[in-house]
Amino acid sequence: MVVGILGGGQLARMLALAGHPLGLTFVTLEPAGDACSAAVSEQIQGAYDDESQLLALAKIADVVTFEFENIPAHSVALLSDKVPCYPPAEALAVAQDRLNEKQMFNRLNIATASHQSVNSFSELKQAINELGYPAVLKTRRDGYDGKGQAVLRSETDLEKGWQAVAENPSIVEVLIPFDREVSIIAARSRSGEIACYPLTENRHQEGVLRTSIVRPDDPLQGLAERYINKLLDEMSYVGVLALELFQVGDQLLANECAPRVHNSGHWTQDGAVCCQFENHLRAICDFPLGSTRPAGQIAMLNLIGKLPDSKAVLAQPDAHLHLYDKAPRSGRKLGHINLCSADKQHFEAQLEALQALF
Amino acid sequence: MVVGILGGGQLARMLALAGHPLGLTFVTLEPAGDACSAAVSEQIQGAYDDESQLLALAKIADVVTFEFENIPAHSVALLSDKVPCYPPAEALAVAQDRLNEKQMFNRLNIATASHQSVNSFSELKQAINELGYPAVLKTRRDGYDGKGQAVLRSETDLEKGWQAVAENPSIVEVLIPFDREVSIIAARSRSGEIACYPLTENRHQEGVLRTSIVRPDDPLQGLAERYINKLLDEMSYVGVLALELFQVGDQLLANECAPRVHNSGHWTQDGAVCCQFENHLRAICDFPLGSTRPAGQIAMLNLIGKLPDSKAVLAQPDAHLHLYDKAPRSGRKLGHINLCSADKQHFEAQLEALQALF
Repeated sequence: MVVGILGGGQLARMLALAGHPLGLTFVTLEPAGDACSAAVSEQIQGAYDDESQLLALAKIADVVTFEFENIPAHSVALLSDKVPCYPPAEALAVAQDRLNEKQMFNRLNIATASHQSVNSFSELKQAINELGYPAVLKTRRDGYDGKGQAVLRSETDLEKGWQAVAENPSIVEVLIPFDREVSIIAARSRSGEIACYPLTENRHQEGVLRTSIVRPDDPLQGLAERYINKLLDEMSYVGVLALELFQVGDQLLANECAPRVHNSGHWTQDGAVCCQFENHLRAICDFPLGSTRPAGQIAMLNLIGKLPDSKAVLAQPDAHLHLYDKAPRSGRKLGHINLCSADKQHFEAQLEALQALF
Repeated sequence: MVVGILGGGQLARMLALAGHPLGLTFVTLEPAGDACSAAVSEQIQGAYDDESQLLALAKIADVVTFEFENIPAHSVALLSDKVPCYPPAEALAVAQDRLNEKQMFNRLNIATASHQSVNSFSELKQAINELGYPAVLKTRRDGYDGKGQAVLRSETDLEKGWQAVAENPSIVEVLIPFDREVSIIAARSRSGEIACYPLTENRHQEGVLRTSIVRPDDPLQGLAERYINKLLDEMSYVGVLALELFQVGDQLLANECAPRVHNSGHWTQDGAVCCQFENHLRAICDFPLGSTRPAGQIAMLNLIGKLPDSKAVLAQPDAHLHLYDKAPRSGRKLGHINLCSADKQHFEAQLEALQALF
């Protein structure tokens, strides 16, 4: 079976690495000439909205998926006419627009921070009057890794914030004094089977994920699963979905969802029976889902901007190195380390040793 | 770093799949046009003794290894002049000749079945007079998966046996009434670090491995480790070495060694912290070795000749499917299943369900 992927970055690369053992082969549609998926998949070099290349992909592929959500909706619509395409276009449309996303959460009784839509500077001022400070202003579309966002702490931040979102249609929401940021990742197959991974606790710096720690017996697991189950069923979703949440006391507030394999699920490559990449492929290829059971004490550390010495990483016996074959550049995700130990003592010593390498 | 591999079969494929996350890239030298490693590595299409292609490989690769032992020794010698090449040529030379191999075992006080070298039919008769029936006749060179072997149970088998080895220089050895066939797999790095995996118990049919069951706390682990440590150090070995053994009571008799990643170690992909493929690459690339710790109840089932339905395999939640992208053909290894369960009860039920698919 040939799997087509829109995008040829590290997520496509890791999908292909997970899928070859299942007998799948891969072809990406990707404009970059140095795509990091190229060593493990065929590539059609072209833009995501190039109709002739999209049709070429549809001709080769038995099923099509995407590795990031900023794919033109009409590209997915065009593909969906020709070949099974998962996750469904509706999920993509929802995830591409923060307002639609928040409205879906609330419609399904999934708690969120209070928020308002703003389309002009005067609407922004009006919304802030109701919500109060501190607040966060975010573009409805095309934001990721903290881009297209601004924190508003007082009236003096309003003008600057409105420039940060380039005067685009946005939402403004109450800045939540959360206890933790967590995420849950789940897969739903074409037959409607659902499998959830345990919660991870995520630490960001400058809007970019740095560390995920797996929390297998988290008291909020059940609530997070109820949330993501509602979302999966509502969208008749197929594939892996990630849901980012803020914990406030014993509450979980949904922040955003990503209709794809997710950075906070990379730990599953070494820490779960079946990883998120394989489960995404199983889901879209109509195979039964694999077990999401975790093993031991697990963390994932992102390698951003520059790489530590591989020998120093691999000197930690429970460390797994995952490099993306990308040239180092400030702020760029170049790889990650999964640390999976049998017990807390070995885990903590190695985590400390690894963190000292950065 | 670019790793060159002589051979482009499933072992090269699985080496590449394990190595991409370490930031390695791969190029094989392989005559076949439909090499199953091709989806995950570059290929130089050529014979293993084609000097110009060997030189082309040496030019591209930072380190060279091989995926099977029937590589012409002079090819490895030629490569070794140009580029680091592991395992060392000496290990290859020993493993290519059953007599040299057995002599090395005995020189290192590693027990074997009694055996004799035979170069003619009369030498065969003479050897049998000393060793008695039943015995096994094996070509010194080029035998694998039970090919080039004959069991001798009485005088009437002698002529047929001598034809089975095509009158080639051979060894004849006492047929051991063994309790179990086991193997141990170990890696030795360029710096001399050694890591051993737990013993597996292997079941063959018609000379071909069918099933390996992992035995993490086997009472014979220590003896097997002493044997393989001696071999690794004797040969200044670098890479993964497999040693097949017969258990007779509380004794282990060495049968043969393979200077490469080995079918009885495929379980490590899903059942050990660091798999044999990654540890082979770590060893030859001068990285620290990864942990060989197993997790839970583990078995490996070979898929030979034809494939079961993937959906039926993946319906077992702890099953991992590994297909080699090879066309089905009688007796051909097409893939394997790794089963890794947290407890004995789940393991046995799923093992039974999987075995019912064949």
